[in-house]
Amino acid sequence: MRLILLGLGVVGRAFLEQLKIERRDLYESYGINPSIVAVANSKARIYNPEGIDTGSLIRYKEERGTLEGHPDEVDMESAGLVREIDAEVLVDVTPSNLTNGEPSLSYLKAALISGKHVITSNKGPLAWEMPALLEMFRNKGLKLLFSGAVGGGTPFLRFVKKCLSGERILSIRGVINGTSNYILNRMEEGLSFRIALEEARRLGYAEADPSADIDGWDSAAKLVILSNWAMDLGVTMNDVRVKGIRNVEISKELLFKGKTIRLIASADDSDLKVQPEEIDKSDPLAVSDALNAVSFTAEISGRHTLVGKGAGGRETAAALIRDLVELKMYMRGEKPC
Amino acid sequence: MRLILLGLGVVGRAFLEQLKIERRDLYESYGINPSIVAVANSKARIYNPEGIDTGSLIRYKEERGTLEGHPDEVDMESAGLVREIDAEVLVDVTPSNLTNGEPSLSYLKAALISGKHVITSNKGPLAWEMPALLEMFRNKGLKLLFSGAVGGGTPFLRFVKKCLSGERILSIRGVINGTSNYILNRMEEGLSFRIALEEARRLGYAEADPSADIDGWDSAAKLVILSNWAMDLGVTMNDVRVKGIRNVEISKELLFKGKTIRLIASADDSDLKVQPEEIDKSDPLAVSDALNAVSFTAEISGRHTLVGKGAGGRETAAALIRDLVELKMYMRGEKPC
Repeated sequence: MRLILLGLGVVGRAFLEQLKIERRDLYESYGINPSIVAVANSKARIYNPEGIDTGSLIRYKEERGTLEGHPDEVDMESAGLVREIDAEVLVDVTPSNLTNGEPSLSYLKAALISGKHVITSNKGPLAWEMPALLEMFRNKGLKLLFSGAVGGGTPFLRFVKKCLSGERILSIRGVINGTSNYILNRMEEGLSFRIALEEARRLGYAEADPSADIDGWDSAAKLVILSNWAMDLGVTMNDVRVKGIRNVEISKELLFKGKTIRLIASADDSDLKVQPEEIDKSDPLAVSDALNAVSFTAEISGRHTLVGKGAGGRETAAALIRDLVELKMYMRGEKPC
Repeated sequence: MRLILLGLGVVGRAFLEQLKIERRDLYESYGINPSIVAVANSKARIYNPEGIDTGSLIRYKEERGTLEGHPDEVDMESAGLVREIDAEVLVDVTPSNLTNGEPSLSYLKAALISGKHVITSNKGPLAWEMPALLEMFRNKGLKLLFSGAVGGGTPFLRFVKKCLSGERILSIRGVINGTSNYILNRMEEGLSFRIALEEARRLGYAEADPSADIDGWDSAAKLVILSNWAMDLGVTMNDVRVKGIRNVEISKELLFKGKTIRLIASADDSDLKVQPEEIDKSDPLAVSDALNAVSFTAEISGRHTLVGKGAGGRETAAALIRDLVELKMYMRGEKPC
């Protein structure tokens, strides 16, 4: 199975590492024998039809700080690379652009045009064009898999399809941004929003521009993906009302009443929104630290809440590998499990 | 598909109700056309090879308070009924006997001898003989399914197999008895153990003999099932150290430190135990009311916690129906999903 890997950040490197660790098991259990024929990031495109020695590629990048100048570097744009070279699968782990999904959206369309399956952890294209993308991939008999786009290694998407199958999902409520949740937890302990944000930055939770996290856009993108997946709502970012946590205060009185505030993303048949909400401290969504939690309310079996780490390179890589196994089973004509 | 139903309590009646509601969908989506050919409880055995009209059977029982005297009553023991009549599936929703698994264990062996698949919500036989039972059913090409035995409608078992597949489970930690959890929550609010237990009895959470719940045996049985399933430990009730909540006190000092006490069932490679443990109030296992929660720690993707209602007739019936669908797919030679 020939793979193109776009993105060589934390998740991309963890994916290559995990492929190496699991190589033997993937072959023996599922007949998967992956060969990375191209790797690209924003700086350089590397291509070798015989398969790239990814260990030495990583060392090259670590020693020089860039992929530029690598003997297998080719003078092509990433989208052109995806379109033109022979491979079965595009693995897209480039950073999510929540404003319009580009350039990842173009990579996915290049994969579609050239008949490649896609495994992605990039939320941008799904947030903006998920209903159309799913239909286009389906029409061409191609798989578009995105377990790693929501919840890192916590299988929120898989949980709905594999564990609640046969039941209609009535609503979704979740805490799906770890950075803002960390900040709210620190504010419970008495820190101001500004100091808590500073601390989150220092610890590497928050980006230099923290807007996607604290203004609710990252949560909104994940909510779009979750609700299209679990409730077939056919929505995009435009359908979500979004309010972040910049103006939140958590008073001692509120805490004394056994309540707190979380940034809640919620969807039902008629309404999608992200906003800070008062909830009971004993609610399963009142998670600590940078944890994520999503409650799915199913028609018969009621409310189920799944809690886990919402990010992390190794965890997200585990989700990508589960998608690789699912894809292989699809390619062999088996029902994936 | 001909079914024998043993047990006509809350779960049994909810199962029949749910079968009726979903009859059309079960047929159209999965080709399942269930016919209940026998129903038995501790008082009477009802048999009709053409299929029992379960609606009128339930009305008969409600009007007279017993199944005895029903026109289709037969003079056989339940185990004999299971062994001798033509049917593909035994659905066992009799009450769990955690002392030795009987008489349900005999029903399962009768099903095995006569070549019937089993769907059960009874913990007793699994707690005492799960490794041997699974092997015997497998050797005869029969399915033994028990989604409803742990967690009611919350798919703890399914979660491990369908959502964390491919990863080794390193440990399990859970709150898996709703009654004792309700009592501990009320004790946090200042009630004594004795008063909280009284209240749980009044609300119908606790049985007249509450020992299985508060002395930890119900948790131990579920822990055996969970750890055989998720970690392949090959254990029985004899391998679990059990301590209940009769002597627990929850002090104001403990609560002030942000901690509480929960009845925790835990398993790793070397140790299975049920005991009251101090945990942080912010731990995902510190669930409120009669909720259940189980954390699975997976080798790569880390700790995942699933929270839901651990009991309830309708919820458990939903689990039994999911098993019925899984069984049908197995019978058709498909990989269940």
